[in-house]
Amino acid sequence: MFQDFKVVRDRPVSIQVKEYVKRLIIKGAYQSDQKLPATREMSDLLKVSRNTVIAAYEGLEDDGFTYTIPGKGSYVAAMVRHSNADNEATASNPTWQIDWKARINEYAASAVELDLMKQGIRAQKGTISFTSIAPDEQLFDLGDVRRAFMDRMAIEGQVLLNYGYAKGYKPLIDYLMRYMENKGVDITGKDMLITNGFTEGFDIVLSALRPSGRQGRAICENPTHHTAIKNLKLQGFEITGIPMERDGIDVEQLESVLKQQSASFDLAYLTPSYHNPTGVVMSPAKRSAVMKLMRRYQIPVIEDGFNEELRYSGAHVAPLIATAGQGNGVIYIGSHSKVLFPGLRVGWVLGDRALIDHLESIKRARTIHTSTFDQAILYQYLLNGNFDKYVKKARMEYKRKYELTKACCEAYLPEAQLSGDGGLHLFLTFPPSVNTRQLLEACTEQGVIFTPGDKFFIQEGEGTNTLRLGFSRVSDEDIKQGIQIIGEQVRRLLK
Amino acid sequence: MFQDFKVVRDRPVSIQVKEYVKRLIIKGAYQSDQKLPATREMSDLLKVSRNTVIAAYEGLEDDGFTYTIPGKGSYVAAMVRHSNADNEATASNPTWQIDWKARINEYAASAVELDLMKQGIRAQKGTISFTSIAPDEQLFDLGDVRRAFMDRMAIEGQVLLNYGYAKGYKPLIDYLMRYMENKGVDITGKDMLITNGFTEGFDIVLSALRPSGRQGRAICENPTHHTAIKNLKLQGFEITGIPMERDGIDVEQLESVLKQQSASFDLAYLTPSYHNPTGVVMSPAKRSAVMKLMRRYQIPVIEDGFNEELRYSGAHVAPLIATAGQGNGVIYIGSHSKVLFPGLRVGWVLGDRALIDHLESIKRARTIHTSTFDQAILYQYLLNGNFDKYVKKARMEYKRKYELTKACCEAYLPEAQLSGDGGLHLFLTFPPSVNTRQLLEACTEQGVIFTPGDKFFIQEGEGTNTLRLGFSRVSDEDIKQGIQIIGEQVRRLLK
Repeated sequence: MFQDFKVVRDRPVSIQVKEYVKRLIIKGAYQSDQKLPATREMSDLLKVSRNTVIAAYEGLEDDGFTYTIPGKGSYVAAMVRHSNADNEATASNPTWQIDWKARINEYAASAVELDLMKQGIRAQKGTISFTSIAPDEQLFDLGDVRRAFMDRMAIEGQVLLNYGYAKGYKPLIDYLMRYMENKGVDITGKDMLITNGFTEGFDIVLSALRPSGRQGRAICENPTHHTAIKNLKLQGFEITGIPMERDGIDVEQLESVLKQQSASFDLAYLTPSYHNPTGVVMSPAKRSAVMKLMRRYQIPVIEDGFNEELRYSGAHVAPLIATAGQGNGVIYIGSHSKVLFPGLRVGWVLGDRALIDHLESIKRARTIHTSTFDQAILYQYLLNGNFDKYVKKARMEYKRKYELTKACCEAYLPEAQLSGDGGLHLFLTFPPSVNTRQLLEACTEQGVIFTPGDKFFIQEGEGTNTLRLGFSRVSDEDIKQGIQIIGEQVRRLLK
Repeated sequence: MFQDFKVVRDRPVSIQVKEYVKRLIIKGAYQSDQKLPATREMSDLLKVSRNTVIAAYEGLEDDGFTYTIPGKGSYVAAMVRHSNADNEATASNPTWQIDWKARINEYAASAVELDLMKQGIRAQKGTISFTSIAPDEQLFDLGDVRRAFMDRMAIEGQVLLNYGYAKGYKPLIDYLMRYMENKGVDITGKDMLITNGFTEGFDIVLSALRPSGRQGRAICENPTHHTAIKNLKLQGFEITGIPMERDGIDVEQLESVLKQQSASFDLAYLTPSYHNPTGVVMSPAKRSAVMKLMRRYQIPVIEDGFNEELRYSGAHVAPLIATAGQGNGVIYIGSHSKVLFPGLRVGWVLGDRALIDHLESIKRARTIHTSTFDQAILYQYLLNGNFDKYVKKARMEYKRKYELTKACCEAYLPEAQLSGDGGLHLFLTFPPSVNTRQLLEACTEQGVIFTPGDKFFIQEGEGTNTLRLGFSRVSDEDIKQGIQIIGEQVRRLLK
């Protein structure tokens, strides 16, 4: 019975022994009120020290699995065990099975259908993958993170580990409010909520603004961030897409749509800087024009502050929320995830005070608060000046990769129009006859994968000749080789 | 203009200078293409070293706020600034204001109404507060947390900080699956999702199970966890409450309600161990009886694994999900928050594989994943055996406080019936003529506050003679004094 007990190195041995004996008890190898082997005997059976067994037996008693009779030993406590009558699977009494598929609602089913991680290709080993736009973790400075952690723990470790406030960790909020001010935002009458990344911020805003009793109507750039499309659909919004041009959304088209629609839109979702997936930056002139239109038609704007730090050239462009001055019509959702530590899941929603007050209550209802631990470490990291240092390094490295990727596309993929002024990806548009899903199949066989662009478009069948090329996690070698291969396959397809 | 620049100690000075100059530029103190003061001049003006200014000026250029003309100096870049025409508040052109209150939907409004943190009394300094049931952070061993952090960072720091998996950090899932097995759970056909605490797990389960097109119907113990009531209501469920007895839910009443209802219930929410707020543990006999009923009427059970570790006496009692054996009708939602580090926000949902698959996609859609950082630190902390060590210490301390609180209630509050077999609070039921909100007002004036029990009841007007007394964060002195005061006020009310 004890042959299967093996000590592993990374856990206290007494705990391993305790758990092993617990499992024996649970499986019924020992009965209620049965005496366990004496500690010396168990020590021989399991080949561990007697002191280890003594500690383990104490733990079993602490956890209520045994009781001690002084002078005699440890005995198995009587406990509720699933009775055979209730649970042993027999022909006449099968276990209680619920058909969960029948009980799961449309929302859950749609969440699975729209879940890109459950579709698409898993990269085989050795595949050159342009699918990711996550940061390259080799650039993370772990020493700085360790220091930030130690600093914060020293100051207020116990506070960090206990319940925090739904709105967020105050020092971080104060820091980020100044950070936004330094981007030109007038924070008068505004407030901030810290969320689990951009995604939670967006989801909570939609939850608060979706109309009751009718379908919500949203206006977006087309293509746009897939997660945004997914969440708008899951929240019952009908989405109207406006095409993108080289310098931002097609303003004439936008104006035309707004004029024609008799019913008004409930919100607009825009990514004016380093748009996902096109990488385009909305020009200053277009920012003005768009804001004038949104104001005229009273359409609140959700601004996605995606990738703003990864600007490779040109002047700082202020976010839309800055151009609104003291106006409150823009909700800015920011996160450092594309640049810094996505694993930490810290984002922020900046907007009208009354709106944020409601969002805070929704946040509290759903997740109580974002991890204070994460927020505090991020705060200390920012305070220590590590972010500036890291961004400088990251920008240099990603810019280099950006230039390389661009050069390779120009050399090996002359058929494609390129877009992307910054960030961690380029967007390629091919002649209409090229279907990038077909192209993907052909490239996969040659060991190269990328993200077909149609999933960023709002309607089925749009953008079938586009693809997104993420280069942040691809080596220089692979960038060259991968793009060459894509080029060869494009030309095969075009014949 | 530079008088208001003050150096603070906790940030690199060059970054403070950079941000100061940024703000000057944003406020318009410098115009586009205007030359900034030479570094030597700025160094004198701000009273910092010239090297600091040089570094700051480099930062400004990196961030796109300035450009350099070699041999000449730094110049302010032309950038989009909110134009006065768009944004200066004037009589003829006020800023764009959206009436957010008009746009916020019922869901958001209800979230605020049901938000207990926005109601009730803030404890003044010196108030004896029995409102909290959070753990006492003085018991946290920060050294163990630091060690867990350093261990994990050393092994896989970069991985932790990058995107993780929606389902959760695999080593933690594997650990918790074994942990649940050690409680007697048969994990065949089951899977686990890591969530931001119990609250997110519960919210996601409700999102997946609420019926489309009709109101959901839930059955609960009455009283029960307020957050559960809040989220059931926010998700549109009609709640039927079954009263509690000393050893658990009133099974006869439960059976009677199930027989009478023509429409079936969509789910049941139960806290069989250390029930919040009554502290009652459901007896083994009742666990069997409840499971038989749930099975007969095919009602899935959401089990709240609240406070299981804080058992002060008696044998280990297996969770309901264990009594179900290989059956899949129970969804167990666990978290260490009541015992360990609530600030970390790590909980888990254990249930049928097909169900978990759907919950995973919902999780991904809403928050992508729980902080990998938090999960990994928790995992290492558990692996190091720290949890067992901590629980032993916590149990001893909380048991001591529990005994003291109980003794004080028996001495000073003989009018009250007590309930609570473990955990961090006692539940008091007074004669029906005592209104605990009135009592709270009277006690507040005497510097003592507690949580009136009616907020844990499902219908308005129920439980007005009850209150929850949380003792985890109250000193021994204050426990005695506070309960004495409550006793005095009760007797005044009863006259």
